[in-house]
Amino acid sequence: MVKKFNPLLKEPLQPKDDTAGIERPLALMEQIPENPAPLVDLANRPVLSARQFDREKVIQLSRLAALYETTPTRMQLPLTGKILINAFYEPSTRTRLSFESAWHRLGGDVMSITDPATTGIAKGETLADVAEMFNNYGDLVVLRDGSEEAVYKMLESLRIPIINAGNGIDEHPTQGLADLYTLFKWRPELIASKVPAQAQIRVGIVGVPSCMRTVRSLLLFLALFAPAIKEVVVICHQEEAFAKDQREELELSGLTLRIARHLNPELPILDVVYINSIAWVGDSFEKLGKGLRLCRSSPLKPGAIILHPLARGEELSTDLDNTEHNWYFAQARGAVFMRMALLTSLVQRIDQVMDTPGQS
Amino acid sequence: MVKKFNPLLKEPLQPKDDTAGIERPLALMEQIPENPAPLVDLANRPVLSARQFDREKVIQLSRLAALYETTPTRMQLPLTGKILINAFYEPSTRTRLSFESAWHRLGGDVMSITDPATTGIAKGETLADVAEMFNNYGDLVVLRDGSEEAVYKMLESLRIPIINAGNGIDEHPTQGLADLYTLFKWRPELIASKVPAQAQIRVGIVGVPSCMRTVRSLLLFLALFAPAIKEVVVICHQEEAFAKDQREELELSGLTLRIARHLNPELPILDVVYINSIAWVGDSFEKLGKGLRLCRSSPLKPGAIILHPLARGEELSTDLDNTEHNWYFAQARGAVFMRMALLTSLVQRIDQVMDTPGQS
Amino acid sequence: MVKKFNPLLKEPLQPKDDTAGIERPLALMEQIPENPAPLVDLANRPVLSARQFDREKVIQLSRLAALYETTPTRMQLPLTGKILINAFYEPSTRTRLSFESAWHRLGGDVMSITDPATTGIAKGETLADVAEMFNNYGDLVVLRDGSEEAVYKMLESLRIPIINAGNGIDEHPTQGLADLYTLFKWRPELIASKVPAQAQIRVGIVGVPSCMRTVRSLLLFLALFAPAIKEVVVICHQEEAFAKDQREELELSGLTLRIARHLNPELPILDVVYINSIAWVGDSFEKLGKGLRLCRSSPLKPGAIILHPLARGEELSTDLDNTEHNWYFAQARGAVFMRMALLTSLVQRIDQVMDTPGQS
Repeated sequence: MVKKFNPLLKEPLQPKDDTAGIERPLALMEQIPENPAPLVDLANRPVLSARQFDREKVIQLSRLAALYETTPTRMQLPLTGKILINAFYEPSTRTRLSFESAWHRLGGDVMSITDPATTGIAKGETLADVAEMFNNYGDLVVLRDGSEEAVYKMLESLRIPIINAGNGIDEHPTQGLADLYTLFKWRPELIASKVPAQAQIRVGIVGVPSCMRTVRSLLLFLALFAPAIKEVVVICHQEEAFAKDQREELELSGLTLRIARHLNPELPILDVVYINSIAWVGDSFEKLGKGLRLCRSSPLKPGAIILHPLARGEELSTDLDNTEHNWYFAQARGAVFMRMALLTSLVQRIDQVMDTPGQS
Repeated sequence: MVKKFNPLLKEPLQPKDDTAGIERPLALMEQIPENPAPLVDLANRPVLSARQFDREKVIQLSRLAALYETTPTRMQLPLTGKILINAFYEPSTRTRLSFESAWHRLGGDVMSITDPATTGIAKGETLADVAEMFNNYGDLVVLRDGSEEAVYKMLESLRIPIINAGNGIDEHPTQGLADLYTLFKWRPELIASKVPAQAQIRVGIVGVPSCMRTVRSLLLFLALFAPAIKEVVVICHQEEAFAKDQREELELSGLTLRIARHLNPELPILDVVYINSIAWVGDSFEKLGKGLRLCRSSPLKPGAIILHPLARGEELSTDLDNTEHNWYFAQARGAVFMRMALLTSLVQRIDQVMDTPGQS
Repeated sequence: MVKKFNPLLKEPLQPKDDTAGIERPLALMEQIPENPAPLVDLANRPVLSARQFDREKVIQLSRLAALYETTPTRMQLPLTGKILINAFYEPSTRTRLSFESAWHRLGGDVMSITDPATTGIAKGETLADVAEMFNNYGDLVVLRDGSEEAVYKMLESLRIPIINAGNGIDEHPTQGLADLYTLFKWRPELIASKVPAQAQIRVGIVGVPSCMRTVRSLLLFLALFAPAIKEVVVICHQEEAFAKDQREELELSGLTLRIARHLNPELPILDVVYINSIAWVGDSFEKLGKGLRLCRSSPLKPGAIILHPLARGEELSTDLDNTEHNWYFAQARGAVFMRMALLTSLVQRIDQVMDTPGQS
């Protein structure tokens, strides 16, 4: 029972993936002229849906995220004295800690509601009364809830900004922002308003657009950057891959969409493979068996990158972790910086990290 | 399933009630000469019962709460480096977050115990040992517990201040302080030692004084300001509205008390209506039906104000929210500032926010 | 039901034990020349086992702990901007709050994971993926887990320091460090490399070395200071008191060990009595009855001290709390300062509290 002591390396482990470091975010920043106006416009806004964002907001948020990623030692603490209410009525560790970390990194304090059984909502309080309570206690709310309507209903009474961290099957906009930040660090040229045909990318999405909130937000964000995307291939076994009007809305934005039934035949042409935990979508994973699984022996295109919002299951093998395809670690890493950028903007502290005309 | 985007107003929503803003707290401050001595006297004290307070303490706490309410940007952070232990063995979101917010606003750090199953007390540790542990870990304890004795028992071993945030049916002193702060913001003249008859108020309390801790603390605080109160009408269906000696103690303090069985006949003469969630008091709410419910069509006196410690149930209708009677939102809002005032006093930091003779 | 007001003393209670104050930590510091090198060597290291420590590390950590204990007002806040991830997959209040308090006292922020049901591990995420997530969110992890392997497994992917706060039955190294700090405050001469026979101490340990993590870590730390220890008497009813090789390893370090079956016959010669909650070790407590219980009438040697990691049960009577033997309160008190010393070292902030050559 006495455990033999394992010699521990003096040097910290190196990351398994090659995407850390400041080179890529620096290169991205150099591509983007600083423009605070789109971020100033976000002040005090609620963030519920990817539809609220335009290209300029996403680009400037990515620039600010890259600034944060390249300066680990905070000169400024723009959220000093600010209180975040982290309301997770649907359990989560990753997203909750990602927001808490982002808020703390900027100097703020956090109050968490993580056990629904002890909360007002569980005791039958209306969302309007809960919102009024939040008005008195904090400066920003992050809400994850199993229902689609809760975050919209709260808006009727909330006078501080709120971020939708996942409302049922509907959306998860900050995850989508993190996904795009990752794509831009990988290939900054994608932000251009005109992208040459040979630089355009094919994006494969393994998931069900009608009912997966991460996929729904991602597609809306990709639609903003349609000039950079040759096509989006949705790999999905469901008869009804899209919800009513969903496909039409995306195609009207300029996105080219195609549905495929099988993953491996598509892999050789995909530049980006986005895969989500799908074991729980009915029993479709079981039916497909190995077909919806990525691993080192999958026929991935050389240089292709894999994104996964994590936590992962069987669908993404760990034998990919130390390959060039692993950009899912970068995605999780960048999500904290992107959330820092968004939070700074929402609580009207952009003037503390950028030169904003007319603000001291 | 695709949710149509709801256009979101650029301007933040206006409050439903008209009680926010700095006018009223400023007006209250002008009525109260600054006098730090009563607050200096609170340093390191436990706060268990309304009986520990005299008029001067309540008035100076209200003045400091108003100071905090009128200066949202903290120049000083008097609780920097101080740790609050928020021990909620009985679940609560409102009171817990109210204290956490107050402590953070003043620059302090918070450690929460919210799941009794994982705590020492659940594992059979004595309250004395839990208190000794708290001595080592923090600077102040806030305790909510289902038993009346726990907070008193802890005093035997605790060497840091403790605030009773609700001990069974006994008391909830900080809620009472918040209630009085609200009354004083509404009518500052109530703090005078002599109040002309026409300015005195009739206070209706819908609740059961013998067993509702918010009502018990409120009555004790009202007794301190008996000169301002023409009468207190307790609207209560119970045979035994008061506990043994409770009514006598209050009347000895100068409070005039009357018991009424029905609410609506009293409303036209009440200046203040205090109503509590009463659905859970046996089945008395069911028996009374609509009789114990306030709504817009209730025969409220013009200019009367409604107080409710929240969370609310059916007894207080939302159609009152945007009327002149809605002072329950002000009550919740002010509770944070009143708690800030009390906390500053308890941890001996009054000298950081007031000029105190003999202290640098 | 009306509670009579209990008059509350104006002066805070005095501690029941006589071990508080700054005299003893000051005296300890005077015995130890400042030497930052052993602590600089701890930077970024994981802390999993007592075996990672040598005499110099323990002595310098004790010196720094004493420095913290004698300076309640922090001039420096070396953990400003640093985030602790407090991951308690096995419930605990004491150890969790001890680490949170230590981290806050040094100016840092804390994120807690206390409900395993909502965490990644519960949802089937691998420890490697959880570790990768922690890399992105914080600067140090404290982990308590029911399995022995989890903390070692995490090392394979973690790139920030981790502290083992209890891994199954294996070890609890920071508790052992706190235990030794307590011994050194009691008798600073024990840190000498040569201790005269008459100053050497007899240490009794009531517990089962094969399966109690606090005892396992303590024995390994005591082995480092074998010159100060005449003998360790393990009072234990089990047939197999030690695990395979455990006794041999300790004896090879120079510790003299003896097993005894009964406590009271040993008490008159023991200088230190370490007792642990043993009610749960099968039904051995029931069998032994009063034999494994310490109380005022136990035949303790005059001047002997009692240590107990707390929480306590029946085995340590409260009638010992206000006797000279009570050093278990000092032990809990000192644990926060020792953790502060360790945390400062791990996050490479020793240069902020000591003069370290070559660092500004």
